[in-house]
Amino acid sequence: MKIALAQINYHIGNFEQNTANIIEQINIAKNKGVDIVVFSELAVCGYPPQDFLDFNDFINRSLKAVETIAKECTDIAAIVGSPSVNPELEGKNLFNTAFFLADGKIYGKVHKALLPTYDVFDEYRYFEPNTKFNVIEYKGVKIALTVCEDLWNVDDDPLYVTCPMDELIKQSPDVMINIAASPFNYKQAETRKTVMLKNVDKYKLPLFYLNHFGAHTDIIFDGGSLVLNDAGEVVKTFKNYEYDFDVFELNDLISNQKNKINTDIPEASKEVKIERIHDALVLGIKDYFGKLNFKKAIVGLSGGIDSAVTYALAARALGNENVKGLLMPSHFSSDHSVDDAKKLAENLGSPHDVIAIEDLYHEFNKTLKPFFKDAPFDITEENIQARIRGVLLMAYTNKYNYILLNTSNKSEMAVGYGTLYGDMNGGLSVIGDVYKTDVYRLAHYINNEKEIIPTNTITKEPSAELRPDQKDSDSLPDYEVLDAILFQYIERVQSIDRIINQGFDEATVKKVLRLVNINEFKRYQLAPTLRVSPKAFGRGRRLPIVAKYLS
Amino acid sequence: MKIALAQINYHIGNFEQNTANIIEQINIAKNKGVDIVVFSELAVCGYPPQDFLDFNDFINRSLKAVETIAKECTDIAAIVGSPSVNPELEGKNLFNTAFFLADGKIYGKVHKALLPTYDVFDEYRYFEPNTKFNVIEYKGVKIALTVCEDLWNVDDDPLYVTCPMDELIKQSPDVMINIAASPFNYKQAETRKTVMLKNVDKYKLPLFYLNHFGAHTDIIFDGGSLVLNDAGEVVKTFKNYEYDFDVFELNDLISNQKNKINTDIPEASKEVKIERIHDALVLGIKDYFGKLNFKKAIVGLSGGIDSAVTYALAARALGNENVKGLLMPSHFSSDHSVDDAKKLAENLGSPHDVIAIEDLYHEFNKTLKPFFKDAPFDITEENIQARIRGVLLMAYTNKYNYILLNTSNKSEMAVGYGTLYGDMNGGLSVIGDVYKTDVYRLAHYINNEKEIIPTNTITKEPSAELRPDQKDSDSLPDYEVLDAILFQYIERVQSIDRIINQGFDEATVKKVLRLVNINEFKRYQLAPTLRVSPKAFGRGRRLPIVAKYLS
Repeated sequence: MKIALAQINYHIGNFEQNTANIIEQINIAKNKGVDIVVFSELAVCGYPPQDFLDFNDFINRSLKAVETIAKECTDIAAIVGSPSVNPELEGKNLFNTAFFLADGKIYGKVHKALLPTYDVFDEYRYFEPNTKFNVIEYKGVKIALTVCEDLWNVDDDPLYVTCPMDELIKQSPDVMINIAASPFNYKQAETRKTVMLKNVDKYKLPLFYLNHFGAHTDIIFDGGSLVLNDAGEVVKTFKNYEYDFDVFELNDLISNQKNKINTDIPEASKEVKIERIHDALVLGIKDYFGKLNFKKAIVGLSGGIDSAVTYALAARALGNENVKGLLMPSHFSSDHSVDDAKKLAENLGSPHDVIAIEDLYHEFNKTLKPFFKDAPFDITEENIQARIRGVLLMAYTNKYNYILLNTSNKSEMAVGYGTLYGDMNGGLSVIGDVYKTDVYRLAHYINNEKEIIPTNTITKEPSAELRPDQKDSDSLPDYEVLDAILFQYIERVQSIDRIINQGFDEATVKKVLRLVNINEFKRYQLAPTLRVSPKAFGRGRRLPIVAKYLS
Repeated sequence: MKIALAQINYHIGNFEQNTANIIEQINIAKNKGVDIVVFSELAVCGYPPQDFLDFNDFINRSLKAVETIAKECTDIAAIVGSPSVNPELEGKNLFNTAFFLADGKIYGKVHKALLPTYDVFDEYRYFEPNTKFNVIEYKGVKIALTVCEDLWNVDDDPLYVTCPMDELIKQSPDVMINIAASPFNYKQAETRKTVMLKNVDKYKLPLFYLNHFGAHTDIIFDGGSLVLNDAGEVVKTFKNYEYDFDVFELNDLISNQKNKINTDIPEASKEVKIERIHDALVLGIKDYFGKLNFKKAIVGLSGGIDSAVTYALAARALGNENVKGLLMPSHFSSDHSVDDAKKLAENLGSPHDVIAIEDLYHEFNKTLKPFFKDAPFDITEENIQARIRGVLLMAYTNKYNYILLNTSNKSEMAVGYGTLYGDMNGGLSVIGDVYKTDVYRLAHYINNEKEIIPTNTITKEPSAELRPDQKDSDSLPDYEVLDAILFQYIERVQSIDRIINQGFDEATVKKVLRLVNINEFKRYQLAPTLRVSPKAFGRGRRLPIVAKYLS
């Protein structure tokens, strides 16, 4: 039996396009004599459809797409994900279903049993968990078909009380097929492989794991589909961040060898993670613009590292000619700021304008003077500068149909060192899930072949340049220390006592965690943030604004 | 047996304060010879704690609070909600638990079985559902103790496959006690009463239903706790939006009458709903400021109805002297705008400043002229005005420690008629869940006793006044029609075909729904919005930004 995996991109709610793309792949598979071609979880409607699932019409269009695709399934079978209606009176109205299409019709259905409801996932919001487990028999082959999370309950501290494969294995299947929508983070490739190896080790069956690629606002799917033989050898790892398609003969994957499989996959190196983050962010930007039907980005260039990296990433995603740089020096800007920013745009050959904001800044001060009287310079005036820049950037987006890219990094977003309605502006936060220390690593990676980001941007001391001689280190710990504490608190979800016990200075830890907690109100209004870590700001991290905890 | 309900306010993560408040009530109850005093769901940590639940320290502090409270429970029992640890290896790590405290210790525990995961609720994100059901026997009385949603599976189309009371009733309990955290919406009082009546009708037991009051950012709890006798008579409805406490003799609630109970509660009138919305918004503002330890609000006053209503509500919540009005006319502002806004502030005796933005507007145009050349006036220049105002308002918040209140209404937020980083600014959206037509009703309600909102503000035609002779009706259907369509699409979650079938003009429906969908990116960055309807923007309505559906 020949099984093909079609790793393609989807667009949420774009039934016509998704259906056409799936049928195109079915035809390619037919031409290669494939028996079963596999598509991803919720393929027809795109993942995650979120509350569109609450609309009858959205479900009807999904099911119509499944029917349309089924009609193409003559002399071939296809596995396609779609929401489906729960016929029982009790329980939620929908299932998250893998449709097995063959003979021009719906041949079988498998509903998802384990519904991820943590981090960015909200599946129990919509779906009833499946409780009945049956293999699908097709052309004499028994298929243990599951949907994404259904294979993931293999930890020592399992999240769910049921394990779908434990039920399916009782029916002696010949092969496992899993259709997924498994989002990227910089260590997900190893996690995913470990999970798949654990399944092969436990059930001694070949495994087809199909993930899709493509970005949906903040969530990036990196592909990397896997085919494993029953001995736990990875026969094929699909490409990341792009289309891929391949065909496998099932018999070639069966050795009936029963040895213990090593499921320990070492973590990727920092260098590999940075490369992955780079590629994922480029895909994230590309799909955000492409799927919204925009072409051009604008970025405020300060001469600093954050805007430089954001700009370079945007240029890779959209083309150098499609990223406009706007340089907006004030009288607090250092001499090198404009030079560094200009050099960056010139290195890329990208369009850029320079607008001094001094007159506007003075006009604001003049306007406010009768009311603020002789109140001393403080955060107010710093923020006015950032907000003037925000107004100018947004004026460009309105006049010329740009999307403004936000340039805030994860470290500053964590501690609230950004100006709401100023430098926090933007339709998409590009590096909001990348700590400052990793932003530098990204810069070096971007400069790998030739200098794009000016050396001076990388080597100079970080500063917001909103008052004379300001440096980030005036009020924050060194970024190495700050990022290490933030990593423990945010990614590793460690309590304050455990972080201090790791040897960090207690006063510093308390200060940092307090800053994180009291600035939830700012992050609430931050643009969607491309997620590249296991715990990003946004829908994956939900904290109260009004609270009194470590604050 | 004497049972007391203590309907108090909580502060998320403020263990010290919550514990002290609970103990204070226990002592009041002791003095009244109470046997059992009841507090609400997750009382010790506040509801909803969201991802704070992921931190060990947060759970430990919750459990320590429970222990502290237990020690006070001598000669009295208390029922208190708290997260607790799931001792089983499989499943989520936490339960949402009602602790029964007596004899100075934890006397019994009941875990929540039905975990609301829809609208604003995310409980399955954190908690394992309970599957074991036992009554608690205390002083010879068998108590069917449940947590909030556990009593709510009484619809004809039940959301859950299990029903906790169906299990508990097998053990012949004498009374039902339910501890809740049931958020306000303008028709929730009737819904709640219906659900409680259905339970009494089904199980023929008296019922104590304890809800708390208080607002937590966007979510408002209105209290309204209920005590029903076994004949389905509401013995007591607790106050809304404030503290209440009362004691009941259980025997007085038992008649053993088995008649069918009428569970049909007519919907409240529009007038009652407006009054409720008014009171809930006032509580929402009050608690947002109080729990964040802020005193003063600032509101941009345009002379229009939205800012007027927001300002008047803030004055009621915070005191007239604590709401600053900022009037920022441009050359597009009509003559009456400043007069109307001034009159409003004067009616309230509230402080206000007037800052003309014309010079700033010209300075922006002058600054951008070399780049925009002779591009015609368009949305760019409209937005610049709104954003100048945003910068000025934020300057005040920075200089004088105000919180800016957002004045956008639900109708304009729905169709995207607001300027990001302009009039969409604010720490809290006050009327973002109130349709324009209801904003007028609120204005009339506010003016009930004397004119606070100037008549001209109410009677003049709505306009953003961002270009000459602009009116909202230039580009939108009449608000009566717009709001009716939005109500069907948002609150009633009706598909496009069903809305059209109700008799609305097809082209208008398509236009409105398209506007709603393509403006998701704006609402993503909107401040938290006080929720007063069954479906508010924010955490209760989660839609993709990058999508292609009705768009």
